[in-house]
Amino acid sequence: MSGAQGKLALGIDIGGTKVAAVLVDASGTVIARDRGPVAPETNDAALHSIIAVTDRLLTEHPGACERLAGIGAGAPGGVDWRNGVLLAATNLAWRDLPLATALSERYGVPTLVENDVNVAAWGERCFGGWSVPKTPVQHLVYLTVGTGIGAGLVENGRIVRGKRGAGEIGHIPLLDNGIRCKCGMVGCLEAVASGPALGVAGRLLAEAGAAPRLLQLAGGTATDITAAHVFQAAQEGSPGAQQLLVREGYYLALAVLICWRMLDPQVIVIGGGLAEAGAPLFDAVWNELRRLRPRGPDPSEYVVHTKLGADAGAIGGAALVLHPEPGFIEAGNLSHALR
Amino acid sequence: MSGAQGKLALGIDIGGTKVAAVLVDASGTVIARDRGPVAPETNDAALHSIIAVTDRLLTEHPGACERLAGIGAGAPGGVDWRNGVLLAATNLAWRDLPLATALSERYGVPTLVENDVNVAAWGERCFGGWSVPKTPVQHLVYLTVGTGIGAGLVENGRIVRGKRGAGEIGHIPLLDNGIRCKCGMVGCLEAVASGPALGVAGRLLAEAGAAPRLLQLAGGTATDITAAHVFQAAQEGSPGAQQLLVREGYYLALAVLICWRMLDPQVIVIGGGLAEAGAPLFDAVWNELRRLRPRGPDPSEYVVHTKLGADAGAIGGAALVLHPEPGFIEAGNLSHALR
Repeated sequence: MSGAQGKLALGIDIGGTKVAAVLVDASGTVIARDRGPVAPETNDAALHSIIAVTDRLLTEHPGACERLAGIGAGAPGGVDWRNGVLLAATNLAWRDLPLATALSERYGVPTLVENDVNVAAWGERCFGGWSVPKTPVQHLVYLTVGTGIGAGLVENGRIVRGKRGAGEIGHIPLLDNGIRCKCGMVGCLEAVASGPALGVAGRLLAEAGAAPRLLQLAGGTATDITAAHVFQAAQEGSPGAQQLLVREGYYLALAVLICWRMLDPQVIVIGGGLAEAGAPLFDAVWNELRRLRPRGPDPSEYVVHTKLGADAGAIGGAALVLHPEPGFIEAGNLSHALR
Repeated sequence: MSGAQGKLALGIDIGGTKVAAVLVDASGTVIARDRGPVAPETNDAALHSIIAVTDRLLTEHPGACERLAGIGAGAPGGVDWRNGVLLAATNLAWRDLPLATALSERYGVPTLVENDVNVAAWGERCFGGWSVPKTPVQHLVYLTVGTGIGAGLVENGRIVRGKRGAGEIGHIPLLDNGIRCKCGMVGCLEAVASGPALGVAGRLLAEAGAAPRLLQLAGGTATDITAAHVFQAAQEGSPGAQQLLVREGYYLALAVLICWRMLDPQVIVIGGGLAEAGAPLFDAVWNELRRLRPRGPDPSEYVVHTKLGADAGAIGGAALVLHPEPGFIEAGNLSHALR
């Protein structure tokens, strides 16, 4: 009864091609969801495509508006979280889009906007179940591995933001292997270990004639090979694909060790598109961690699969409202809200 | 006049072989200093050797006691900062030494104890002059390169501590080169780029007959070669020593890039024994950063030499008292102090 009448939060996950919105109750349970395409061409088009989804979700759940405590949104790229403005993101045309103001005026509730990886980290921290109820984990790293690689850092119950944006682990030039990253450096983790990078490695292997099954899975067209094909071929026993998976595990193990040594978190959560491969990816990462770090607890104890999965971003947006992050409170963004 | 009568803090830097103590006024100026050997054999011996230095310093400055607002101490290894206890450190025999209680009872002032690298970072943050007066820099990394390699992280005006100890950048196995680190992993940054590691690299070079001048500087005994000899030989034009310095610059540039991407600080301060080499070391690091990261501001703008030098630890201890770190206040350690 109290749950049915308790406060709700609207979480919005804005991606490069789609926007997902969820209504979440105080326990972190998703009670409704919707999604739609993002129109990233201009600020107005982007805003309208976001509002189209949230309008529909709230219209279909007419009781939700009066219980709505606030809105939290995550978006890729640079975000001015203090003022709720989307600055700019790779491949997306918005510039200085004042999303928080637009949504709070439209729906009459406080709206928070944050970088999408930080939002997902906050969602896992609050609703990932990584500790006993009511005392969420205080030190957590969320490592997303998909089209890009990035980390959301929660330290002592606060989001680490640095002066503009922390957790850019994908753009450390660790690997002296000559692949140039779109950031301008060579050998960045993202350039060699992202989902697309794994697909390219599979293509090169197939073009060299070293992975016939991989080529077959992609219908005989090497340029169609994706990371998913690599995982499938590895599971079917292709030695070449298995080698690629070992290498992927090594790269991600390095990322884990950087996060672990630099931040000393209680848990490192891996999410993003590549994490959807599940056990084959985690076995590869854990095995490389066991090799690199023979002492200490088994990596499966502290390197774990996202609990919120593809919902981490949207649920994380709601978590910003339901469990306010201290930085937001100190910045004054929640002074009129959520009590 | 107000300076002469203002409050003072006593900062203590406890090392593996010596203890240094300073009296610092509110502006961060050292007004007196002393030092002595550390007796690390037992808890009692360590405590007595620390007290011997602080007793002498305070006895020689009789007016200081009544102006003393508190004591801040930094020590290597694990420190329980909430309770002011030195847990354990490599090569030192103390175990669970309740230093804060002992000093606060002896001198009648609040005493704070923290990991030595964190203390140095806090000192640079408060008194390094990295921003205009009264608004110290909020995001700073202090990278110490000496016998060991470690980082003290200040994020949004707070020390990053993780669950036990953050900033352990020296123990990330970045380098696939087979040198085993004392931590049990292979290719750790510390194992290849610390001061002793640079000396060993010089020895191997000399033993291979590839660095005659280096061997000469060490009096003809290769095992006597230190990092200082490598710097001197490089400055005198030895190609072998210069190559070692380029490699050292590369390793430390990787460390800088890890700190920068993970924490996005406003400034990265390099201190520790190797930083005392000055320009030759910084030129090597900056040159590698320019090569690895061709875009963006020149690295000399954000990778800088410690301002506090060898005093960073002791002055940092005083800074913990004079500019309380929010974590200490939240832990209740300063509730009765410093007002």
